[in-house]
This record gives sequence, structure tokens and C-alpha cells, in this order.
Amino acid sequence: MLKVIAQDFIRAEAIGIVTPLYRELVELTRREPLCMGYDLFTDQKDPGHFIFIETWPDRAALDLHCATEHFRRLVPQIDAHLRERGTYILMDVFA
Amino acid sequence: MLKVIAQDFIRAEAIGIVTPLYRELVELTRREPLCMGYDLFTDQKDPGHFIFIETWPDRAALDLHCATEHFRRLVPQIDAHLRERGTYILMDVFA
Repeated sequence: MLKVIAQDFIRAEAIGIVTPLYRELVELTRREPLCMGYDLFTDQKDPGHFIFIETWPDRAALDLHCATEHFRRLVPQIDAHLRERGTYILMDVFA
Repeated sequence: MLKVIAQDFIRAEAIGIVTPLYRELVELTRREPLCMGYDLFTDQKDPGHFIFIETWPDRAALDLHCATEHFRRLVPQIDAHLRERGTYILMDVFA
């Protein structure tokens, strides 16, 4: 099982623009047959800091997600409003 | 619902020391009546980078967790082996 934390930092003035893009990305990703969990959160201290917590069976499933039509269409539209480079962590279960 | 990501960065030579401390912390925290989720992961690129993903009903429940005997006993023992300051993010559900 692969757990992922992906973090985006969006310019304050663009939060209203990315909101429907994020909602569509979450909705369509949850329909992917291999998606085990795909939840989006915001930092209580920074409304432009968006945090995905994702669960996939393995790396191949994550790669398939990144190749979907919705990912390839929506992520560049979101990324156009980043105020700094996003980060991601691929994680193994420890306990 | 409050989601938390808490990250620790442990010195490589101390991973064997903190492992049973983390396991005890996870086991005892999951028994707390208000704990909705408490999972610990490691970064695939950095075995000293430990990531908690926590779910609590609210901030008061998190504060109760931080005041438990197990938290107050185990966390300082773990923190003695940090290689850099830990971080945490308190998050709201977005989607």
C-alpha cells in the first residue's frame, strides 16, 4: 500500500479559480478503479496551502492516475496558479 | 473533523531506538476514546522522516491527546533523537 501527501501552494487571489478544478479532480480521481483514498484538505493557517492525502495499491496505480485525462487536463490548470513549487512524499506504512 | 499531519526527522543512527517508542505511541493513542485515526508512515526517500496522519473530532480532542500520559512520556524520548525541528499542519476538509 502506497500513501502519498501532495502539497500545493496557491496564490491567494486564485483560490476561487482553483476551487472548482480541485473539486473536479477529486471527484474524477475517486472514480478511478484503483483509487483507495483521495482526500483534499487546507491548512488552517494558510487557505492557499492545499494538501492531498492519497492511498494507492502501489506505484503503478499512482502512475496510472497521473496519466489519466482528468489529471493531465486539470493539474496544469491548477499549477498555473502556484505561488511556489508543490511537494510530494511517497510513504510506506510504519505502524 | 480535524486532520493533522505531524512530521519528525530522526537521526539515522537513532531509528532503532525510536521504533519501539513510536509503536507504543501509536498503540496507546489508538486506544484513546476520541481518536478517529492515527497512522504512522515513513518517507520512501528518507527512513528517518516519520509522518503521522491523524484524525480527531476537533481541536479539544487533539489537546487531550497531547496531555495523555503516553504522549507526555514518549514524545520527549523520541524528540531527543530529532535531527531537525518537527512540523505539524492542522487541516480542514476541503473535498
